[in-house]
Amino acid sequence: MKVNGKPTRTIWIHSECPEIVQIIDQRWLPHQYIVEDIGTVESMAIAIRDMHVRGAGLIGAAAGYGMYLAALEAKAATDFDSHLDSCYALLESTRPTAVNLAWALDRQLQAISKGREADEKIRIAMNTACAIADEDADFCRRIGQHGLSIIREISTAKNGDTVNILTHCNAGWLAFVDYGSATAPIYAAHDAGIMVHVYVDETRPRNQGAALTAWELGQHGVPHTLIVDNAGGHLMQHGMIDLVITGTDRTTVTGDVANKIGTYLKALAAKDNTIPFYVALPSSTFDWKMKNGLSEIPIEQRNPEEITHVEGLCDGKIKSVRISPTGSPAANYAFDVTPARLVTGLITERGICRADRESILQLFPEGRHKT
Amino acid sequence: MKVNGKPTRTIWIHSECPEIVQIIDQRWLPHQYIVEDIGTVESMAIAIRDMHVRGAGLIGAAAGYGMYLAALEAKAATDFDSHLDSCYALLESTRPTAVNLAWALDRQLQAISKGREADEKIRIAMNTACAIADEDADFCRRIGQHGLSIIREISTAKNGDTVNILTHCNAGWLAFVDYGSATAPIYAAHDAGIMVHVYVDETRPRNQGAALTAWELGQHGVPHTLIVDNAGGHLMQHGMIDLVITGTDRTTVTGDVANKIGTYLKALAAKDNTIPFYVALPSSTFDWKMKNGLSEIPIEQRNPEEITHVEGLCDGKIKSVRISPTGSPAANYAFDVTPARLVTGLITERGICRADRESILQLFPEGRHKT
Repeated sequence: MKVNGKPTRTIWIHSECPEIVQIIDQRWLPHQYIVEDIGTVESMAIAIRDMHVRGAGLIGAAAGYGMYLAALEAKAATDFDSHLDSCYALLESTRPTAVNLAWALDRQLQAISKGREADEKIRIAMNTACAIADEDADFCRRIGQHGLSIIREISTAKNGDTVNILTHCNAGWLAFVDYGSATAPIYAAHDAGIMVHVYVDETRPRNQGAALTAWELGQHGVPHTLIVDNAGGHLMQHGMIDLVITGTDRTTVTGDVANKIGTYLKALAAKDNTIPFYVALPSSTFDWKMKNGLSEIPIEQRNPEEITHVEGLCDGKIKSVRISPTGSPAANYAFDVTPARLVTGLITERGICRADRESILQLFPEGRHKT
Repeated sequence: MKVNGKPTRTIWIHSECPEIVQIIDQRWLPHQYIVEDIGTVESMAIAIRDMHVRGAGLIGAAAGYGMYLAALEAKAATDFDSHLDSCYALLESTRPTAVNLAWALDRQLQAISKGREADEKIRIAMNTACAIADEDADFCRRIGQHGLSIIREISTAKNGDTVNILTHCNAGWLAFVDYGSATAPIYAAHDAGIMVHVYVDETRPRNQGAALTAWELGQHGVPHTLIVDNAGGHLMQHGMIDLVITGTDRTTVTGDVANKIGTYLKALAAKDNTIPFYVALPSSTFDWKMKNGLSEIPIEQRNPEEITHVEGLCDGKIKSVRISPTGSPAANYAFDVTPARLVTGLITERGICRADRESILQLFPEGRHKT
């Protein structure tokens, strides 16, 4: 999507120097837009581990490009394959729970192994990295096209009046290579000339809504308003929301979705006010073996400092302020599970389905033998 | 309740100098505990307007003590009554929407008018100010006693295991003179030796939960854990909450409650997980004329900077950090309405009733002719 008016991805090969990969260093958003040059596998490992890049799709793409840099380095090493293996291990250790990371690394290793000599292996690694990124973007683009139909229908029903959409956290293009998941239908509608306006949950504790979603919508020119996570219910009660779209980190074959903490509360409010609640996802988030999200999906607990302290810009510098008394402990659950009964539908790269086993497996029959 | 181990109110007359009123300057909490000397009506007006003191009960008490200071000043003025009138006007203008403010001022004016000469008027003003504060504390104490029965019942059902209570915002003693409304049953249970633990919603955007509720629970020794507003649903889904108690700013005769934004979302989650959701209130928050909270209660919109910026302690100073991009607008709705159907019961100074017209008017028959 656009940054400063220019179509941009979250990761790409330097246009003049193909041995450099460039990323948006997202740690500085929304306050500074910094493009970082990544010239070594080690830098890429740091970028993934320290969250210069984040989000399932983007982590997969970064791993793919990381293995391309590994192949470049391996050419100068004593043993090409053993250098590649150690780079694989380094990259794999950066975010151990990211499913896309291991998947991209394996895909690269398998592809590169088919090359006969170093230059061919490098060429294959480059092509595979670009293919992983292109496919991620293409999946999101398709999610956008399918989701567009939902927004168009609401717009028509409102006689072209603005469609108000609530989203939670950042399931935007910054979490993928382009388009995003939850945001893809919004960008598609906006680009198609449909009037849309997005209410952006700030998404405590890490404020990805305030920092990332608001920034990327603003850069692309999509009208939006930042709200606190507490406000969505009130807006829904007063007819100010037509549609909720969120992303998901993990989706059971029965249609339960694990997403950023607080998603469940918005789904309850949508249900209580008869507002459609859609979840957008590339099918890689399906967990075909899980039947009950609430009892089976493990919920990560993160550092309580994310709650007791808030980061932001102060006097031109990024600073952290403490908001609570020093003696008060805090608990920081990262995700919650929204049961399928509260989900109107799933928007995937293959189309829209209901959040139940039958509909999901109808769209993804290959999941049937994995369950 | 206790501060540094010592029983404390939010406002009182200086023990050695009866011409000074003392307050806790709540702007510095939870980072600094500062007791402020208030020696003039003008200082009291500033303290109310700039929120050194806040909360319905405390604002009423502050207005009462303000009129006592007015009477002291009036003795030296050319015309006692006209000075009193101008002080009334000054204090009334500080928080025009606070119902308790006007009520306390009127009560003082009426009481003082019965005094014959200046010293008698001053004595009456002092006694009335103390009576207003004592009554506020006594109402909250009774709310605590009634609510205690609910907590005791849950504790018994759990064989004495810890009762986990969720609360939102600060309906604590800092918002009143003592005990608080939502916190009163919690303090009563804790002081009665019942094991309680409180999950405290931070309560964006102003973080009254993180700053005030966590502080006052900690000072009184009540075990508690700070969470983001997004987390309550997850805790309820996993059996980690036994009871929700919140306050209310305005309660319709039909049992709808207007409280800090986000309360509605917690009520929905409580309902979805069959957890009792109680609202604690002194009967002064009843609006006998209102029948439909959602359509009738006006919801204040506050400064968007409360959302785009967060205040806290940094390098020993209170600083404000910006969390969102400069180009992104924000909307700041201060309250939401929880419909009566989601409220298990109302805990008042007279006892507990269901959140419906019949039960409310049974407990408060005097409301019948006001509806």
